[in-house]
Amino acid sequence: MPKRIAVVEDILSANDRLAAENRARLDQAGVFSLNVIASPGAGKTSLVERTIRALADELRVAVINGDLATRIDADRAAAAGARAVQVNTGGECHLDAVMLRGGLEQIALDEIDLLLVENVGNLICPVAFRLGTHRSVLVASVPEGADKPYKYPGTYRGVDILLINKIDLLPYVDFDMEYFRRGVETLNPGLVTFPISCRTGEGLAPWFDWLRRAVEQAG
Amino acid sequence: MPKRIAVVEDILSANDRLAAENRARLDQAGVFSLNVIASPGAGKTSLVERTIRALADELRVAVINGDLATRIDADRAAAAGARAVQVNTGGECHLDAVMLRGGLEQIALDEIDLLLVENVGNLICPVAFRLGTHRSVLVASVPEGADKPYKYPGTYRGVDILLINKIDLLPYVDFDMEYFRRGVETLNPGLVTFPISCRTGEGLAPWFDWLRRAVEQAG
Repeated sequence: MPKRIAVVEDILSANDRLAAENRARLDQAGVFSLNVIASPGAGKTSLVERTIRALADELRVAVINGDLATRIDADRAAAAGARAVQVNTGGECHLDAVMLRGGLEQIALDEIDLLLVENVGNLICPVAFRLGTHRSVLVASVPEGADKPYKYPGTYRGVDILLINKIDLLPYVDFDMEYFRRGVETLNPGLVTFPISCRTGEGLAPWFDWLRRAVEQAG
Repeated sequence: MPKRIAVVEDILSANDRLAAENRARLDQAGVFSLNVIASPGAGKTSLVERTIRALADELRVAVINGDLATRIDADRAAAAGARAVQVNTGGECHLDAVMLRGGLEQIALDEIDLLLVENVGNLICPVAFRLGTHRSVLVASVPEGADKPYKYPGTYRGVDILLINKIDLLPYVDFDMEYFRRGVETLNPGLVTFPISCRTGEGLAPWFDWLRRAVEQAG
């Protein structure tokens, strides 16, 4: 189906141009930005909430939430104390650079230090659409199972940071951490990884430290 | 973007025609078929394994597994005793009717009673592509959180059966079953629902009974 492939390539290269514009805009304002990617229910929103609350006294944080239909996640981010903008994708299974641009236009970028972009819950499509953010973070979760790097290689290959969430559930599920880590290492050698629990708070301090340093270096 | 929408509509109507052909083929052979949809890691493959093992003495079962890249799931289904065919989607985030046709061509349909089609792990796109199967089954899982019907309404609206998996984890996570069920009931009133645990086996007997009856009626 060469015609279909050509259409997809056109969409992607238009998207890349817009992503570069988004990045320039963020850089000009001195904002460090993250694209947060995960399966439905891996804990993106809980991570965003925890991060906002932990850094509220030090950093000015804004959140852009991509969602199919609701604004549940944006409301949770706002309740945690961030400037929160909802971008409804109208059924699309990922955010793209146009949607992010729409979100950026609703934020006074000069007044923030950190932007967290919560993508649509999907382990396949989001990684194919650059947004212009500085880093991509994958939130994996223990109950999803240890075979996920092997089954979703594109996403595990395409991110810059990996958070392994819900480690408080390790005693109650069959999760072979060595098998999981071996898959990750093969696809994305040396990937920065933090095992965490957004429920108990375990392991979050090193993640917050990493984020503080990243924002400092960008500012 | 009217051009893009027109392309998508053409793809979908071509898909529907092929889905109808698939259905005719299955009906002619007297095969009852299920399209199993879920997030990554909700437990599709474990459900397929459990179902094959439970019904092996009564029914001849085949499995078609849709996967981005690997054949981990097909190998698990084959180990459980079914005829298993792997359909790699080459990165596509869902199965479609063409891919299912490719899978059907590798199975002697006259020699089976039940076909389980395991879709790609994705809570958004699969429901938009009819395959020609008789029923769609959504496998939700407790650790994904109770807000999923509200956030993925298209999928919860588009399925015929709901399995709520990993109920053994209910004591260890915050999952408001009433909130979850209220969302489901609003989107899909009277949806046939089975709370189950593929890990402990709890709740599976009524599901197997439902399936036995469905196969009998189709045969």
